[in-house]
Amino acid sequence: MKTDDTICALATAAGQGAIAVIRVSGKKAIAATEKVFRSVSGKSLKEQTSHTIQLGAVFDKKQVIDDVLVSVFKAPNSYTGDDSVEISCHGSDYICSRILQLLADNGCRPADPGEFTYRAFMNGKLDLTQAEAVADLVQSGSEAAHKVAIRQLRGGFSSDIKKLRDELINFASLLELELDFSEEDVEFANRAELKKLLRKIKSHISRLLESYKVGNVLRSGIPVTIIGEPNVGKSTLLNALLNDDRAIVSEIPGTTRDTIEDTFIHKGVNFRFIDTAGLRETKDIIEDLGINKTFEKINQASIILYMFDVSGSSLEDLELGIQKLRDRLDDPDKIIIIIANKIDLMMKIPRGFKDFLEMETIFISAKRKENLGQILEALIRAVNIDDIGDKTLVCNTRHYLSLSMAYESLLNAEEGIRKKRTTDLIAADAREVLLHLASITGEIATEDLLKEIFGRFCIGK
Amino acid sequence: MKTDDTICALATAAGQGAIAVIRVSGKKAIAATEKVFRSVSGKSLKEQTSHTIQLGAVFDKKQVIDDVLVSVFKAPNSYTGDDSVEISCHGSDYICSRILQLLADNGCRPADPGEFTYRAFMNGKLDLTQAEAVADLVQSGSEAAHKVAIRQLRGGFSSDIKKLRDELINFASLLELELDFSEEDVEFANRAELKKLLRKIKSHISRLLESYKVGNVLRSGIPVTIIGEPNVGKSTLLNALLNDDRAIVSEIPGTTRDTIEDTFIHKGVNFRFIDTAGLRETKDIIEDLGINKTFEKINQASIILYMFDVSGSSLEDLELGIQKLRDRLDDPDKIIIIIANKIDLMMKIPRGFKDFLEMETIFISAKRKENLGQILEALIRAVNIDDIGDKTLVCNTRHYLSLSMAYESLLNAEEGIRKKRTTDLIAADAREVLLHLASITGEIATEDLLKEIFGRFCIGK
Repeated sequence: MKTDDTICALATAAGQGAIAVIRVSGKKAIAATEKVFRSVSGKSLKEQTSHTIQLGAVFDKKQVIDDVLVSVFKAPNSYTGDDSVEISCHGSDYICSRILQLLADNGCRPADPGEFTYRAFMNGKLDLTQAEAVADLVQSGSEAAHKVAIRQLRGGFSSDIKKLRDELINFASLLELELDFSEEDVEFANRAELKKLLRKIKSHISRLLESYKVGNVLRSGIPVTIIGEPNVGKSTLLNALLNDDRAIVSEIPGTTRDTIEDTFIHKGVNFRFIDTAGLRETKDIIEDLGINKTFEKINQASIILYMFDVSGSSLEDLELGIQKLRDRLDDPDKIIIIIANKIDLMMKIPRGFKDFLEMETIFISAKRKENLGQILEALIRAVNIDDIGDKTLVCNTRHYLSLSMAYESLLNAEEGIRKKRTTDLIAADAREVLLHLASITGEIATEDLLKEIFGRFCIGK
Repeated sequence: MKTDDTICALATAAGQGAIAVIRVSGKKAIAATEKVFRSVSGKSLKEQTSHTIQLGAVFDKKQVIDDVLVSVFKAPNSYTGDDSVEISCHGSDYICSRILQLLADNGCRPADPGEFTYRAFMNGKLDLTQAEAVADLVQSGSEAAHKVAIRQLRGGFSSDIKKLRDELINFASLLELELDFSEEDVEFANRAELKKLLRKIKSHISRLLESYKVGNVLRSGIPVTIIGEPNVGKSTLLNALLNDDRAIVSEIPGTTRDTIEDTFIHKGVNFRFIDTAGLRETKDIIEDLGINKTFEKINQASIILYMFDVSGSSLEDLELGIQKLRDRLDDPDKIIIIIANKIDLMMKIPRGFKDFLEMETIFISAKRKENLGQILEALIRAVNIDDIGDKTLVCNTRHYLSLSMAYESLLNAEEGIRKKRTTDLIAADAREVLLHLASITGEIATEDLLKEIFGRFCIGK
């Protein structure tokens, strides 16, 4: 991507609004805007100091296009770091397209998606993790996702990576020092010390890697599935939780055939609900497809709500069902919450169910919306994100992969020490670790990587 | 509506965007924002001069909600005329709702639709026609509609009304002068002079009333209907013009039953296309409903495209069809353009059709998209808006009705003079005219009228 020309784009969401904002950035941002703008005060934009606003109008020759406010930001004190202008006009698509056309006629190029943030990155206003956080922030729909993104935007994650690098540089410099004395064949750096340092860095990275499990689901929502035999009330429960009629509910067993995804937010956490077809063995082909999908979903989910009809099942049925489910789970430790539905049809709840298998069991009536709050509480408990507040969470797959590779190289270095390899080999591993960490913050980044990252942004960002 | 408290609302279109802008206006706008904002510079917003911007962050207690830019506008130099603040944050619905909540917690009230513009009106920043133009401007999707709205926003229409009032005051003052000498029973004001002045004002108002016909359609789009027997290719033509597949096209006569409205813009004019059911007499009930609708639409339309199948109709059929159409038209002068379709099925076009009835006839193949440009040209010619540029057009029904009532009172005054009524009666009519004109610009306006006008706005405007 070129960075020496001037770009422009609509920066606010498309559609009718009271106002819309058009961003212009680059060397000619002020000069190009000047050509289509006349201020009420008669002052030119060039005379204007940074971070000030002028009232005026955009003209196409003699024709007024709109009355606007123009904000001027002078390099390096702008979002991109280059001279920038924001034109605040009336929120009509027609007006925005006319103004953008006029700017294009005066030497500005329509910006590619993410190009403003790309320039901010190239100018050192943001590192790569912060740039990625900008896109996450715009998309974050829950308190938890927002918390993670804003922390990353404000450099929280970067500073963790920096800490790691400082420790590593300490390690690497000991090795380099030793290399300087390599001819003398002495182990300058105490191997026990080195090992201790390595362990510390490893535990740091491993904690970050561990956090990805939570970070990733917080960012994109905790996947939850509801499973159970046909007609146990899965759709009714989903609808009650979503407060909506998205799944078709009927009394005919096996009605819900497509998996329907929907999300709801409770206590700041985004749950991505997945409604699935029944689990019953059947010869109905469509039903069968539904079942295969069910198991796919189950293995993607973080939490399983296993639902059964307490009015029509025996304890044996339930035990068998849970066993069948466990047999097909990839992760035996996956969280399962048992939902005993249709208590409205029962006089009292049979004793045996009460403390079944020591698993959390919640007795509800989905139809009458009884005890649904207990399910919400159980979900929040299962996520256990009470203290995410100040911890750094890895929530981006790219970061996770880079950290994994860094970890890999660390293990190699450790092995090198254990097997008493030559210092230059160990030093190479250490450099490898540094490289992977640098790729996270973007100190080292390929053109392709940057394209991929910024290509995911919306235009105007 | 209260105007002494502080209001806040999202001002940009809802949805994801690079940035979103939240407007705050009222006495406590700056103080309330101050409570949730910390600037990077450490400077407080109160110290800030008008029309300047500060970088900082919005906080909920210790939690960062977003990095933002805050623009300060001090009374009376703001859109509303009151102290105002614009918070430019990341374009996420979650962030916007958090910031709005924080502002509400600090004494700001969520603004009603149009409330910012209402305050601008109450503070004398805009008159009523200008306020109405703001809503029109946001909605204007074509060059013509935009031109009319921006002219009105910038006071073009108001200044025309002002001119009218100046003339009227001249007239009224002559009458009042006469009233002062009424005991002496002399006609102080020359009746011939009065009549001349009245005629001048009348012609001025009548020109404005006349302009409503064009103004109204330019604002909301020129309504065009396509009519003709079943299966002559109406839907195919519509699709070709709209470049889309909105109407169901089939070979079965009478397929298109619902009227489908759609618009397209050519040379800056918005055409509101109405696809209708066939015109054939039939006993099919649904088809019949369609036909009634057709005639409703025809009488609403400014331009009728009368379409026939040149390959399958005789000149007599065509003459009969046009006659039937004319019989049911409210306005005999309505513009009819004859579209002879399916020339692709003909070796050559029969002579008779070529100069049928001296009406404009365009020979096309809707299927092959041949000669469609001629239809577009004919439409533009029919509208004849080449010179709307500097003329004032009445495009708002409220203005039209007020002008009509003013005209009515003018006629009364004229009759009073003709019938030699007493001066106080004529003076009362003159005052009536002034009243109606004042209601246009809002110098006189009821609470109900204002509610109705501003209630149509979007929130944040």
